[in-house]
Amino acid sequence: MKAVQVVGYHQNMQLTEVADPTITGPLDVIVRIGGAGVCRTDLHILEGQWAEKSGVTLPYTIGHENAGWVHSVGSSVTNVAVGDKVIVHPLVTCGLCRACRSGDDVHCSASDFPGIDSSGGYAEFLKTSARSVITLDDSLEPADVAALADAGLTAYHAVAKASRLLRPGHFAVMIGAGGLGHIGVQVFKAISGATLIVTDRNPEALALAKELGADHVVLASADGSHIAAIRELTSGNGAEAIIDFVGEGGATKDGVAMLRGAGNYYVVGYGENIDVPTIDIISAEINIIGNLVGSYNDLVELMALAAQGKVSLHTVKYRLEDYQQALDDLDAGRIRGRAILVP
Amino acid sequence: MKAVQVVGYHQNMQLTEVADPTITGPLDVIVRIGGAGVCRTDLHILEGQWAEKSGVTLPYTIGHENAGWVHSVGSSVTNVAVGDKVIVHPLVTCGLCRACRSGDDVHCSASDFPGIDSSGGYAEFLKTSARSVITLDDSLEPADVAALADAGLTAYHAVAKASRLLRPGHFAVMIGAGGLGHIGVQVFKAISGATLIVTDRNPEALALAKELGADHVVLASADGSHIAAIRELTSGNGAEAIIDFVGEGGATKDGVAMLRGAGNYYVVGYGENIDVPTIDIISAEINIIGNLVGSYNDLVELMALAAQGKVSLHTVKYRLEDYQQALDDLDAGRIRGRAILVP
Amino acid sequence: MKAVQVVGYHQNMQLTEVADPTITGPLDVIVRIGGAGVCRTDLHILEGQWAEKSGVTLPYTIGHENAGWVHSVGSSVTNVAVGDKVIVHPLVTCGLCRACRSGDDVHCSASDFPGIDSSGGYAEFLKTSARSVITLDDSLEPADVAALADAGLTAYHAVAKASRLLRPGHFAVMIGAGGLGHIGVQVFKAISGATLIVTDRNPEALALAKELGADHVVLASADGSHIAAIRELTSGNGAEAIIDFVGEGGATKDGVAMLRGAGNYYVVGYGENIDVPTIDIISAEINIIGNLVGSYNDLVELMALAAQGKVSLHTVKYRLEDYQQALDDLDAGRIRGRAILVP
Amino acid sequence: MKAVQVVGYHQNMQLTEVADPTITGPLDVIVRIGGAGVCRTDLHILEGQWAEKSGVTLPYTIGHENAGWVHSVGSSVTNVAVGDKVIVHPLVTCGLCRACRSGDDVHCSASDFPGIDSSGGYAEFLKTSARSVITLDDSLEPADVAALADAGLTAYHAVAKASRLLRPGHFAVMIGAGGLGHIGVQVFKAISGATLIVTDRNPEALALAKELGADHVVLASADGSHIAAIRELTSGNGAEAIIDFVGEGGATKDGVAMLRGAGNYYVVGYGENIDVPTIDIISAEINIIGNLVGSYNDLVELMALAAQGKVSLHTVKYRLEDYQQALDDLDAGRIRGRAILVP
Repeated sequence: MKAVQVVGYHQNMQLTEVADPTITGPLDVIVRIGGAGVCRTDLHILEGQWAEKSGVTLPYTIGHENAGWVHSVGSSVTNVAVGDKVIVHPLVTCGLCRACRSGDDVHCSASDFPGIDSSGGYAEFLKTSARSVITLDDSLEPADVAALADAGLTAYHAVAKASRLLRPGHFAVMIGAGGLGHIGVQVFKAISGATLIVTDRNPEALALAKELGADHVVLASADGSHIAAIRELTSGNGAEAIIDFVGEGGATKDGVAMLRGAGNYYVVGYGENIDVPTIDIISAEINIIGNLVGSYNDLVELMALAAQGKVSLHTVKYRLEDYQQALDDLDAGRIRGRAILVP
Repeated sequence: MKAVQVVGYHQNMQLTEVADPTITGPLDVIVRIGGAGVCRTDLHILEGQWAEKSGVTLPYTIGHENAGWVHSVGSSVTNVAVGDKVIVHPLVTCGLCRACRSGDDVHCSASDFPGIDSSGGYAEFLKTSARSVITLDDSLEPADVAALADAGLTAYHAVAKASRLLRPGHFAVMIGAGGLGHIGVQVFKAISGATLIVTDRNPEALALAKELGADHVVLASADGSHIAAIRELTSGNGAEAIIDFVGEGGATKDGVAMLRGAGNYYVVGYGENIDVPTIDIISAEINIIGNLVGSYNDLVELMALAAQGKVSLHTVKYRLEDYQQALDDLDAGRIRGRAILVP
Repeated sequence: MKAVQVVGYHQNMQLTEVADPTITGPLDVIVRIGGAGVCRTDLHILEGQWAEKSGVTLPYTIGHENAGWVHSVGSSVTNVAVGDKVIVHPLVTCGLCRACRSGDDVHCSASDFPGIDSSGGYAEFLKTSARSVITLDDSLEPADVAALADAGLTAYHAVAKASRLLRPGHFAVMIGAGGLGHIGVQVFKAISGATLIVTDRNPEALALAKELGADHVVLASADGSHIAAIRELTSGNGAEAIIDFVGEGGATKDGVAMLRGAGNYYVVGYGENIDVPTIDIISAEINIIGNLVGSYNDLVELMALAAQGKVSLHTVKYRLEDYQQALDDLDAGRIRGRAILVP
Repeated sequence: MKAVQVVGYHQNMQLTEVADPTITGPLDVIVRIGGAGVCRTDLHILEGQWAEKSGVTLPYTIGHENAGWVHSVGSSVTNVAVGDKVIVHPLVTCGLCRACRSGDDVHCSASDFPGIDSSGGYAEFLKTSARSVITLDDSLEPADVAALADAGLTAYHAVAKASRLLRPGHFAVMIGAGGLGHIGVQVFKAISGATLIVTDRNPEALALAKELGADHVVLASADGSHIAAIRELTSGNGAEAIIDFVGEGGATKDGVAMLRGAGNYYVVGYGENIDVPTIDIISAEINIIGNLVGSYNDLVELMALAAQGKVSLHTVKYRLEDYQQALDDLDAGRIRGRAILVP
C-alpha cells in the first residue's frame, strides 16, 4: 500500500510503497483510511521532538487522527464487522489493567500510540484494535470527523470534566479559540448551562467562537487588560472554571488571576510551568487539574454529539499524495480548521 | 391589606381586609406581591387534603408561588434591600441545622411553608425570610416568573439531578409534558447533551414538548404500546433515566419497564405506589430516586436560566380580585400554562 | 477430571468423570480449583429455580465461588501466568461493550456466569477468562477466600457504595448479620467512619456482628419494636443508610420505616416487593438503590482488605467427594460461615 | 475580664483587663473559654506577618482555637443554650451568600476570623456566632479539644477530601507527621480503607505516626532517597494521593515525584511555590488540590470521631496567666502535641 513516512528528522517525508498491515492478534482491526488529520504534533515529530520519547525506528508512517472503514478483523473481534464505518481512538490499550478496567483507558499501563510509537494513518490502511474503534452514525463521513479523534477528543475531555461541576449562573473562561478551542466551545454549549467567556489574542478566532455560541468574547492583550475585563464580567469574583487550551506565553499566570476562590483551573495546552505560591493555592483553595486526551468513552460521547450536528469541524481535504502541501499549509498558518489527507 | 383567604373547606375563598404583616424577627423580609401563582395544590387545600398535615387554623391566606418587590426588612438582612425585585423560595428555613448547612435546606428540621402552613401570597404583602428571597435579573418581571418558585423549581431539581449522570448518547424519558414537564423539557435542553424522549397521553402537550426541544415525542396509550416504541428508540435497552412527572395511573409500572439496567427512575409526580419485586431491583440494579421541591440554590440556578431566556412560562394574568375566576379556570382545564394573580 | 454435576432437578448431584476443559480462545484461562464455595444458590439451582433463566442443558457442573491456581492460558493473556494463585470473578465479560468500558462490567451486554449458565467450579478445573482472574496476595489461600468471590463480593459492593455518601456521625443500619452481613460488617468498619447498627432476629448472629465491630446491635422482632429502638439510637431521625441483606419477611417495610429523610435504602437481599407510596418517596425524598454482585474492581479492593487481614471468613472445608455432606449441612443450617469444597 | 493582647508587633503580649463582650446581634453567642489553643500562627501574628492582611487595630486579643461553655445568646439563637459545652469554628460566616448556602462556608463572602481579624480567645470570654458553635459530646472537655478547632479541622478537611477518592489497595502518602499530620493519621485510619505511608524528617514523629496507625513510615532525607523508597512501596507507580502538610523546603517537588499518573496532590502546608511544567501536569494528568481550614460540617464530623475516641490530641495545659511560657515553649520546640491556655 501507499504510505507517507518519516525517513529522517528535519527532512521531508516520503510517499512510498510498504507492505499492507496484517491481522496477527485476535483483537486486531485493520481500517481502510477514509481520512487522516494533519496535526501540529506531526510537525513536531518531523522536528525530532518526539524521537527520544517514542523511541521509534525510522522510517515509519505517522498520522494519529484516523477514521475509515473496517477492512479485516481478528478472531475475537465482536464489536465491529468488515465494512463498518469507524473512527479510531488514538490509543491501543490492553483492556486488562486497573485503568482500563475503570473506564480510564488513557492511563493504560501498556498502551501503544499508532502514528507516534508505531505505524499511523498517513496510508491506505491502519492496524489498530477492536478496543479502539467506534462505529460512526450513518450521517457522518470518516474524512469529516477524523480530526475529532485526537484534537477534538482532548477538547471534549476537558470540557466534559469541567462541566460536571458547573451550574447555570456559573462562569467558565476558555483561553484559546483555535483548533481545540473551537471544538471546546461547541461541546460546552451542547452539554452545559453555565456561561462561557472565550478569550484569545486573535479577533477572528473570537468572532468564530461567538458564532459557535460563546456567551462573551474578550480580546486578550499583552498588557493583561482582559483579566480585569473578565473579572468585571464575573462580578469581580473570577470564574468558577478556567479551561486553558494555550498553556504558554503567560496564559497560566493570567488564567489563575481570573479564577474564583474554590475554582478549578483545567490545564490542556502546555509549554510553560505552572508556578504559583502554595499560600495562594491554599488561601483561595483552588485546584489545578491536568487533562490528557479523552478516553474511548469520551470519544463515543463526542461522536454522539457529532451525529446530532452539535459539533462539527471545518476541514480542508488533500489527496494523500499532496501531504507535503498540507504540511506546508499548516506550518504557514494557511489552514482554517483542519487539514485532512484522503488516500 | 387585601387578602384572599380560606374560610372553610369545601367552600369558596373570600377576599377580605387583613392586617399588614410586620417585621418581628431580624431576618424577616416583607415582599409586596407582584404575582402569585395559582397551583393545583391550592385546589387541594380547599378540598381539605392538607388540613391535617398542615394543622393550620382558618381563616388563612394561601398562595405559595410568589414574586414581587422587597417592602421592608429585619435588622440582620444583608442580602436584599427595600425595592429589590425578588422571587420567593417556598420554604422558610432555619439556616442552622445540618441540612441547611449542607445546601439541602429543603430538609431543614424546622422549616415553614407560607401559603400552606401559614399566610401566603394571595395578598398584597407576604412575610418571608432573607433566606428565601432571590434578587431577579433586570430582564425578569415578578408576575412572569412567580410560578417558577414551586412548580418550575420542582422540575428543575429533578432534571438537574438526573442530568449530572447523563452523557451525550444517553437517553432520558420524561413522563408527562404538562405544567412541570414543559419546564422540565426547557431545563433539560439547556443543561444536558443527552437525548430527550417525552411521552404523554395528550398530543397537544407533546406538540409543545417538541417545540420546546424534545428530541423525540411518543404518544402514551392505555395499551402500553409506547413502552415498546421507547424501547425501540433506545436500541432495545431502555433509557438511562426516567423522569416521572405523573406518578399515577400506571405511570410507574410503565416507567420501570422502559428503564435500562443500572438506570435511575426519578419519582416526581405521585399518587400510586411504587410496587416492584426486589429481585427486579437487584437483578437489573436499578435505582428509584425521590424528588421534592428544589433548594434555594436550585432556584438561583433556575433564575439564571430564566434570565438567559432559556426557560420561560406561558402565563395568564388575573387581578387579585378575580381569584375565583382563576381557580375556576384552572379547575376546568381552561388554562394553558399558569394562572397568576396580580394584586 | 472429576466434577460434581446436576443430572436432574430435584435429585442429588453426581460425582463423575468429565473431559478437562481446554483453551479455545485467546483470553481463556483454566484454573485448577483450590476451593469452591457452596452457596444457597446452588440449592436453588437443584430445585430448578434457575432452570428457565439460565437455559442450561443438563448435566452440567455448578459452583460459582472459585479460587485456585492458573493451569493454562490463551495466547493473549498477559495479566496472569501459569502457577499464579487467583480468585475468580463470577462473571466472564466481553471487555468491549460500554458497561465493560466503564468499570461496570457486571452490566456487560454479553456476559456468561460459569456455575449457573455454564460449567462451574465443583470440579478439578474451571475455564474462565483473563478478565475474571485476580492474583492473590501471598498471605491468602484459595480455599480460604473462594467464598468471597460471590457472597463477599456482593456485600462489599453494597457497603462500598453506601460508604461513599456516609460521614462520621451518620448512621447505617444493616439488616441481616448472616453470610453476607458478617462480611458487610467487616468491610464497613474497614472503610467507613460512620456508625453501624446491625439488626437480626438471631441473637448469635448479633453477637458475631458485635465481635466484628458493629457499634450497636438490635434484636429484630416480629412486633417491629426494633424499629423504635433504632429510631431512638438515631435521635429520632432514622438512619442515613439502610443496607438490607434480607429483602423478605417484611424487611423492606421495616427498613423504610428506619430511614431518614433524604436517606438511601440499599436493596441486596430479595424475595418480597418494594411497595411504597410515591408520596412517601417524594415527601421524604428517599432513594431505593439496587445492588447486584460487585465488579472486577470491587473484587480487587475486597482482596486488598483480605490481604490486610481486615476481612476474613469462617470456612468449613470438605473434600470434593463429600459435596453431598456439604450441601446437606448447608440445607440443615449446620454450617457456621461457609462450606468450601476442596478437590 | 482578663485578656491577653497584642500591644505591638515584635514585642511581648500583655495580660490586661478589658470589657466583657456583649450580645449586640440576634445570632451572637458569647462563650466562656474552657481552652484556647496556642498556634504557630499566633507567633506569626506577633511577628507582624498578618498585620496588613487582617488590617486589625492594636491592641487586640488573639486566639483562634477555642472551646468552652455558652455564656449568653442573641435573640435568634436556637441551636445552643446557655451552659452548653461547645467547640467554636474559627470563622464567623454570614449564612446568606452562595458559599454558605452550599455547605462551603469557608468561602463565605463576608466572614470574620476572631483571633486574627478581631478579638479572639486568649481571654475569659469570646464573642462568636450561633453559626460557629457545635455542642460537644458529654465525653469531651473543652480544653482537650480546643486545638481541633483549627489545626485538627484543617487536617480533617484535607484527609476527608482525599479519602472520598481512595479505595482499598490505593496508597496515600502523608508528608509531615507533626501537629496536623498526627491528627491526619488518626482521621485517615478512621475513615479510609486505603494504605497510608507517612514520611517525615523526624524519626520520633514517624514513631508516633506508626503508633497511631500508619501502615508504613519512611524517613525523609535531604538526598531524596525516600522518594525511591516510596515508589518501591507502591510497586513503582507512585501513590494515588499525596497529602502535603509541609509545603516548603522542597516538599512539593518531592511530593509530585511520588505521585501516580491520574493522582491527586493535596496542598495543605505552604511556603514555597508549586512549580511544575504544564507538560508534566497534562502528560501524567495529575491534579493539584488546594486545602484551607474545614467547614462547619467538617468540624461536626471531626467531633463525632473525637467523641468515639478515634481522634485525640496530646495537650499541655497552661493557666491563661502563663501565656508567655506557653508561647516560649512553642517557639523553642518544647511542646509535644499542643499548648492550651486555660483561663
